[in-house]
Amino acid sequence: MTAIKAYAAASKEADLKPLNIERRSTRSDDVKIDILYCGVCHSDLHQVRNDWKNSIYPVVPGHEIIGKVLEVGSNVSDFKEGDLVGVGCLVDSCKTCGACKDDLEQFCENGATFTYNGEDKHLGGHTFGGYSESIVVDKDFVLRIPENLDAKAAAPLLCAGITTYSPLAHWGVKEGDKVGVIGLGGLGHMGIKFAHAMGAHTVMITTSPDKSSDAKKLGADEVLISKNEDDMKKHAGSFDFLLNTIPVGHDMNPYANLLKRDATMVIVGAVEPLDPLHGGSLIMGRKRIAGSLIGGIKETQEMLDFCGEHDVVCDIEMINIQDINEAYDRLQKSDVKYRFVIDMKSLKES
Amino acid sequence: MTAIKAYAAASKEADLKPLNIERRSTRSDDVKIDILYCGVCHSDLHQVRNDWKNSIYPVVPGHEIIGKVLEVGSNVSDFKEGDLVGVGCLVDSCKTCGACKDDLEQFCENGATFTYNGEDKHLGGHTFGGYSESIVVDKDFVLRIPENLDAKAAAPLLCAGITTYSPLAHWGVKEGDKVGVIGLGGLGHMGIKFAHAMGAHTVMITTSPDKSSDAKKLGADEVLISKNEDDMKKHAGSFDFLLNTIPVGHDMNPYANLLKRDATMVIVGAVEPLDPLHGGSLIMGRKRIAGSLIGGIKETQEMLDFCGEHDVVCDIEMINIQDINEAYDRLQKSDVKYRFVIDMKSLKES
Repeated sequence: MTAIKAYAAASKEADLKPLNIERRSTRSDDVKIDILYCGVCHSDLHQVRNDWKNSIYPVVPGHEIIGKVLEVGSNVSDFKEGDLVGVGCLVDSCKTCGACKDDLEQFCENGATFTYNGEDKHLGGHTFGGYSESIVVDKDFVLRIPENLDAKAAAPLLCAGITTYSPLAHWGVKEGDKVGVIGLGGLGHMGIKFAHAMGAHTVMITTSPDKSSDAKKLGADEVLISKNEDDMKKHAGSFDFLLNTIPVGHDMNPYANLLKRDATMVIVGAVEPLDPLHGGSLIMGRKRIAGSLIGGIKETQEMLDFCGEHDVVCDIEMINIQDINEAYDRLQKSDVKYRFVIDMKSLKES
Repeated sequence: MTAIKAYAAASKEADLKPLNIERRSTRSDDVKIDILYCGVCHSDLHQVRNDWKNSIYPVVPGHEIIGKVLEVGSNVSDFKEGDLVGVGCLVDSCKTCGACKDDLEQFCENGATFTYNGEDKHLGGHTFGGYSESIVVDKDFVLRIPENLDAKAAAPLLCAGITTYSPLAHWGVKEGDKVGVIGLGGLGHMGIKFAHAMGAHTVMITTSPDKSSDAKKLGADEVLISKNEDDMKKHAGSFDFLLNTIPVGHDMNPYANLLKRDATMVIVGAVEPLDPLHGGSLIMGRKRIAGSLIGGIKETQEMLDFCGEHDVVCDIEMINIQDINEAYDRLQKSDVKYRFVIDMKSLKES
């Protein structure tokens, strides 16, 4: 074990503060990573504030980790010292259940180990995330970052990226499809970039007309203001796929009305109760609403490779770890375009 | 035009009473049918009482029609006088749009003509349903009834049958799948019969323990009482498919929890607002909720042929047309096993 520096919340009400944590020594199957950058996900805020009622304090958040390999165990051949790598939301799973065998470790039937606030099967207690100097992770949960990408801007690909890429890929979005991305935040901005890169006619669907020019810069072919009933009518029944990134409960009926017959809307943001859905919204046109949760390790690597090929990264704002509490306040007000990334040098040099 | 006898509701509050209506003369593409039996669907009650706010009075309900061909037009070669035929919820569509070309006339983009309370494109006004002596229907909307089936008990196949067969077929339910049918009424009892006939391990899911023995007689392998939390936990994450026939708004979250990863629940009953769905119910396990509406003509014939092969009909209670108002009262109390069918002799001889 090694003591390292981190930032943590000691309770639901507490600001994040410096804290020393223990990391395990590098085992034969492990990769030890020097953390360079860590993205700030909305989940970090939810966990710090115990919104999902499962937080264990102290919470060291962070699951959008980019770093350089410091050391590898004796069984590790795919990575070597100095490689640019990433770690996302998962650091372990059972590797034997049906979900793991289907490369969907996020749905591990025996419980995947999440990067923070998960059960630490090695040291006991719970896992600590990327707001820290370094991390030790099983080699099967380490991702390779294409060298042509800006490493800082690649950090949020590990959560925001895979969360939006996975449903677009899983439901087979392809060139020429009309795809709507609902909500323009950390997830939505990646949804637009991916749908555009996949060749879809990409429509940003938002309540805010002032997001139009940004949406177009990100790759949207059109912007649909959902408060405009006439425009919503014009687009009724015309979408092949909808990616719904709204992070809170909302009325899905007007969006379901935009779907073509047999088309699907996937929810990735709202992990909370949604407003009453009218049965007729799905019955008329045999429509579907589905959920999606990040992606498995294989698909996450596929997404990163896709980003390398299509030169896709996130739009980010760099911060020092000392500014994290202020960043959370701004995040809660959606005052970020579109993801904060912590420069971990600020932690190491403090 | 010919005047014929029918039963109709004159307004939302009025009982059904005898009424003379006009039917068109048989055109070259038409089949004129002597109605022998007509099933009583819950939609009949909804339309008579204007629950869906689109009723036009007088309402002559009835879209589960079985009869004998009386006369065919000059272009009709598939049917001849004396054939046993059926008419379901649809009597016409544009035949040219994408949905019609995909054999999904129920979703006709130019508006399918429903058997009653639809726009009558020939006589003007609105269409009149099967609570009547005879009907004249475009040949493309006439179904062939397998001669080995009990004609009376086949009537509800035209709506309750296709409504439950279509989603099971569309989502590929197959031998060995674990399929749950939620709700045991007119739709649910057919859902059990079809899932069983398709070789699925069929589980009746109901709030009422007193429905268990009936469910097993209908073909259920197991009965799951949804109020029993321990049993619901035992079955969590185990269903390949759920057919949700509950006819009113309800909490779908406990049922979504029964689905396997990537599995689908299809709503066919609740054409009204459902209780708030928790986003996590779909996100965890990448689950799907979809809708389904009757079926197209091609699939309805496929369903009837399937019934002929597997000897599937509905469980019915025969009534005379003069008893229709009492039958509606009982239907509203779910006091029927499992579908009323009107013997139309009672109308003709009155």
